[in-house]
Amino acid sequence: MPSPSSTVDATLTLHPDRALPAEPGVRAIAREIYGSVANLPIVSMHGHVPVEWFAEDRPFSDPAELLVVPDHYVVRMFVSQGARPEDLGVRPLDPSAPPAESDPRTIWRRFCAGWKHFRGTPSRFWLEHELVEIFGVREVPSEATADAIYDRIESVLREDSFRPRALLDRFNIETIATTDNAWDTLDAHGRLAAEGFGSRVLPTFRPDAVCHLDRPTWVDDVDLLGAAAGVDVSTYAGFLEALRVQRARFVAAGALATDHGHLGVDTTPLDEAEAARLYAAARTGRTTSAGARAFAGHMLFQMAAMAAEDGLVMQIHPGVLRDFDQAVHRRLGPDKGYDIPLAVDYARGVRPMLEAFGHHPNFRTILFTIDETVYSRELAPLAGVFPSVRLGAPWWFLDAPDAMRRFREAVTETAGFANMSGFVDDTRAFCSIPARHDLARRVDAGYLARLVAEHRLTLDEAVDTAADLAYHLPRLAYRAGDAQ
Amino acid sequence: MPSPSSTVDATLTLHPDRALPAEPGVRAIAREIYGSVANLPIVSMHGHVPVEWFAEDRPFSDPAELLVVPDHYVVRMFVSQGARPEDLGVRPLDPSAPPAESDPRTIWRRFCAGWKHFRGTPSRFWLEHELVEIFGVREVPSEATADAIYDRIESVLREDSFRPRALLDRFNIETIATTDNAWDTLDAHGRLAAEGFGSRVLPTFRPDAVCHLDRPTWVDDVDLLGAAAGVDVSTYAGFLEALRVQRARFVAAGALATDHGHLGVDTTPLDEAEAARLYAAARTGRTTSAGARAFAGHMLFQMAAMAAEDGLVMQIHPGVLRDFDQAVHRRLGPDKGYDIPLAVDYARGVRPMLEAFGHHPNFRTILFTIDETVYSRELAPLAGVFPSVRLGAPWWFLDAPDAMRRFREAVTETAGFANMSGFVDDTRAFCSIPARHDLARRVDAGYLARLVAEHRLTLDEAVDTAADLAYHLPRLAYRAGDAQ
Amino acid sequence: MPSPSSTVDATLTLHPDRALPAEPGVRAIAREIYGSVANLPIVSMHGHVPVEWFAEDRPFSDPAELLVVPDHYVVRMFVSQGARPEDLGVRPLDPSAPPAESDPRTIWRRFCAGWKHFRGTPSRFWLEHELVEIFGVREVPSEATADAIYDRIESVLREDSFRPRALLDRFNIETIATTDNAWDTLDAHGRLAAEGFGSRVLPTFRPDAVCHLDRPTWVDDVDLLGAAAGVDVSTYAGFLEALRVQRARFVAAGALATDHGHLGVDTTPLDEAEAARLYAAARTGRTTSAGARAFAGHMLFQMAAMAAEDGLVMQIHPGVLRDFDQAVHRRLGPDKGYDIPLAVDYARGVRPMLEAFGHHPNFRTILFTIDETVYSRELAPLAGVFPSVRLGAPWWFLDAPDAMRRFREAVTETAGFANMSGFVDDTRAFCSIPARHDLARRVDAGYLARLVAEHRLTLDEAVDTAADLAYHLPRLAYRAGDAQ
Repeated sequence: MPSPSSTVDATLTLHPDRALPAEPGVRAIAREIYGSVANLPIVSMHGHVPVEWFAEDRPFSDPAELLVVPDHYVVRMFVSQGARPEDLGVRPLDPSAPPAESDPRTIWRRFCAGWKHFRGTPSRFWLEHELVEIFGVREVPSEATADAIYDRIESVLREDSFRPRALLDRFNIETIATTDNAWDTLDAHGRLAAEGFGSRVLPTFRPDAVCHLDRPTWVDDVDLLGAAAGVDVSTYAGFLEALRVQRARFVAAGALATDHGHLGVDTTPLDEAEAARLYAAARTGRTTSAGARAFAGHMLFQMAAMAAEDGLVMQIHPGVLRDFDQAVHRRLGPDKGYDIPLAVDYARGVRPMLEAFGHHPNFRTILFTIDETVYSRELAPLAGVFPSVRLGAPWWFLDAPDAMRRFREAVTETAGFANMSGFVDDTRAFCSIPARHDLARRVDAGYLARLVAEHRLTLDEAVDTAADLAYHLPRLAYRAGDAQ
Repeated sequence: MPSPSSTVDATLTLHPDRALPAEPGVRAIAREIYGSVANLPIVSMHGHVPVEWFAEDRPFSDPAELLVVPDHYVVRMFVSQGARPEDLGVRPLDPSAPPAESDPRTIWRRFCAGWKHFRGTPSRFWLEHELVEIFGVREVPSEATADAIYDRIESVLREDSFRPRALLDRFNIETIATTDNAWDTLDAHGRLAAEGFGSRVLPTFRPDAVCHLDRPTWVDDVDLLGAAAGVDVSTYAGFLEALRVQRARFVAAGALATDHGHLGVDTTPLDEAEAARLYAAARTGRTTSAGARAFAGHMLFQMAAMAAEDGLVMQIHPGVLRDFDQAVHRRLGPDKGYDIPLAVDYARGVRPMLEAFGHHPNFRTILFTIDETVYSRELAPLAGVFPSVRLGAPWWFLDAPDAMRRFREAVTETAGFANMSGFVDDTRAFCSIPARHDLARRVDAGYLARLVAEHRLTLDEAVDTAADLAYHLPRLAYRAGDAQ
Repeated sequence: MPSPSSTVDATLTLHPDRALPAEPGVRAIAREIYGSVANLPIVSMHGHVPVEWFAEDRPFSDPAELLVVPDHYVVRMFVSQGARPEDLGVRPLDPSAPPAESDPRTIWRRFCAGWKHFRGTPSRFWLEHELVEIFGVREVPSEATADAIYDRIESVLREDSFRPRALLDRFNIETIATTDNAWDTLDAHGRLAAEGFGSRVLPTFRPDAVCHLDRPTWVDDVDLLGAAAGVDVSTYAGFLEALRVQRARFVAAGALATDHGHLGVDTTPLDEAEAARLYAAARTGRTTSAGARAFAGHMLFQMAAMAAEDGLVMQIHPGVLRDFDQAVHRRLGPDKGYDIPLAVDYARGVRPMLEAFGHHPNFRTILFTIDETVYSRELAPLAGVFPSVRLGAPWWFLDAPDAMRRFREAVTETAGFANMSGFVDDTRAFCSIPARHDLARRVDAGYLARLVAEHRLTLDEAVDTAADLAYHLPRLAYRAGDAQ
């Protein structure tokens, strides 16, 4: 069918107005707002990029390993259409199991052949952005173009200018945080600091593994924590001390935040004796799911107490039933696209924490959710009154154009803009970071443009707010540098 | 007030752009997309039209019996404004009770006098479509026009071209499914098959009545099942066998799907001994609500197991508290407009079923909901990874313009289009089927047009996707004909 | 940045098209619809303005006391940004506690300096409307303009034309309801009636304090009830009788409604013996939270039974966890911005009440919520069939442009317009009442204009519906005057 748009089918291009509102008047305003923030530096405070990438600065291996295999958004879409994760290169944990596809070109061809499946998804937007902006690809992915695109990307990957550290500059990333185990000794971060990347690549303290008594690796992980901290963790008191020591190590290494991914969001403290009892029992392998649940809630409260001491910003990412399919989890491990959000009693859950620390001048928590129902009902009202609370950006499945717009519409009227975290990406896909921030800036520009067009905001207020959302608010929310 | 639109008040007309987006640029794109799918055949895989209508092909009696009395959308609106269901012709179960209005013209006059109540509802859209397109009515319903419209419809109803079978052609219905009890012997479907309608009017296996131990008619219904299957159902094993036999009979009669309308969506299997114990107790009239609930969940799991064997697509329609007002239910029976949706713990509920069969190549389930909160939180993430799961179209109260748009916006970004069922109507109102499919095609065209206008999709991708949603995806979801 | 809109920064003005849709075609229709209802009288049936303001008709003291201190929307926004409520003039209950800021000019300066925080909130819309329309302010609030604006408002406050009663005329308020304790003797309303305001300022019966056995003041409040009614409340029977007597007193004083703000919405009646037992125990200070919860649900049922007798419209405002931070509550008292909405099992909760009275010709209940999830799932389906149920307007945090639009989109397709309450404000901020009604009329005009532009409604139907929503439906819902 002849039409301007459909020519995009012939050549892969990025329209300058993509993801901006369709209505011409609003779009014109959105263009002006977006233009004023498009080139602001990226503050990426919740990443999952391995720190080794930056510490070792090795070239990336191939297009499949970079863009397909580690991206569970991509893998799960093919699985939903009948492929096995192994067909996309996801390796089974058991070496004796049927092996995963190991030829990157075969994986890439499968990916390109399934390009149609990504219609209407943010992966389509991110991948198009990456292919065009980063790799200079001009063909729309398909079986026919797969090899040519593969060759193009592979040649780019060989360039020194495409090493991870060089990309930090190219992507205009001012700060990027990694996520690190509570027992990490942060050697890689140390090496980066020695080479002048100390204020640019920051660690994030993630203690989930040692806060859940019923995780199979809990005893070993707590031992790792004790060893890293040089503290005897045979007692609950020692366990808390080890956490304090490691938090201090993270602070010294430039960490600004902790991250907590519990299933629920209960923060009810136990009395110390009960906590110690549950801890001691678990050390000897005796725990119950009820006890583990209670201890996990207790530990969220303890982490808040320590945060009020050491000032690390407490990120809470609750409400996801991880590894929904346990057989898949046993075969392939975590983070393979089988995590399903659930409803969480959010306000009641965080109440003990906020009653204790919600007004503490040194306490800061950023609340995230994948349950849109708590946006206007619970999180915006909480962020709109508690000085310690910031409302996190749309997370995970909601990091998408329409979902991000719904978020703004649901929370702004109650919480305003100043109680938001600003945009926070959450990805393992390093090359998608610029695309994700660009998309968020476009969606926010479109939302603000509507407020201007409806005479609810002036244009210069909208431009000022767009800069807050894209850059200043994340720095404030995480107390980054001079913004602190 | 003089205005182009208000002339619609004088003459009832259907605007060619109705239910398309208002913004001129988006509307122009939507028109092109809609135009490309407007005339595709209708695949109606979840109907509640009585099979006898097609088997006997008798003329319809009168306008009230066709358009008012059986349509609970219409009846409940009048009830909410103070009428009794009996005033709209709904007959009480007890012959000695005050009788329902029996004069179709009186019922019709009441309906036309209340036309204003349907402003902003899909019933208004459907009924206008039916009046104009099917009956050639030109007057806006009102007290003044009621008789003229009645006479017009009545005269049309007398034409042979308005018999049920003729309407299948006129409505361009390629396939229509009926909903049939588990103990149905499908004689009517047999007669239809003998007359060449076998691939056009399909049965659907609905075992709810025999899966809920606490329903007053459970013992009798199970006996009917046993009799139909020719199997002794005095034991639980016999009960399962009878279900297998009847499922096979439905498959032989061309059935493609089963339908399950539980209050919850728990699918936890019981051990066989416990299931047999609950069954045996219920056969002797001894059951508890907890036992009935557990057995119902167990049976959903059993139905999934059988579906993985015989390939019938498993439709799940949970979360509706039927017969909310029990006095009305005792007086008038079920499906009288007193069914109220509730929140359901959806993902946790289907987990046992999906862990057991979610990757089975022969298993297919279509998940429906009337709880919009699970769209982005649970159903889209599930459909976006499990190959057996398709996400059903907006159902019941959500089969409406704005609700259908919200559905697309909530699920597409996570699940894409290929994991959708495409449009599935769910109605007792045979004449509303073309209107419902037309409305869905318009709303999808509008949604896709916005993606094109926002440069998130090309026009030819949108046109291709519109055909998928209107025709190809329903055939794929239900494994209809060559699409299998 | 030079731009037409940004000139609004120089002078504070109200754009005639504010809060109307941006798309020019839809806006033109919306303008016509809005223009037809902009000047209709205000029916304000759920206010929290103290009746004394009208009875005594004293001038307002100062800008801070009028616009900042009592408005928890305003105070909580500053608290979320680090201020203490006391900094905004909120007085601690304990006179020996650190005192609140007492200089109104200092409070006003703080408010103006934080004007930016209200971007995107309805407070911004309401306050702009009040400053321009009521006080003739022309400066955008800021540190620089704070004093000038303060002086301007103060001078206006000294005018006789700004006394509360004069404002009733100026605001075009036809009827305004106050909220009064169950034990109120309504002397102020009596004085108002004697002066001819009896049909204009109406009391509302609010029995929450005496329906919750576990409230610290319950025993005393019940004694007050008994004293007001002249009934011995030492027994449960006497308690019910006292409630009947006081309800009759409210009816005699012109009350049209009761209001019920329970945490949950359970309406399960207890048998009388159990209710009497719980009551007697509570009179001697012995109650449990479970017992109090059960009694509260029982009392909602009792209030419905009395409503079916005396015809008072029963407003239910559930699902808010009051005084989320108990330390703040102890320090400052209730209604200080620390109330957080929660999910409520709404349909199941009201089922006993609706099964008993849902079809009673004399019973009318208006259901409100701050949980958007029940709009399309539970409340619209209930309002769409039960003749006694009207669906209340978006309440509290949802009384905002985008939230009000979402409400219409979520409920209209299922419940239609005639089952709505029409707009009901809910405010302590007297001067914001015209702004709130104006905003609601604009948002409804925009919603209706879209239906017209999408050819789902004719323009004259939209104009007629707009008048229903703004004026006629509230009068019908509350059975006000001749509308009864």
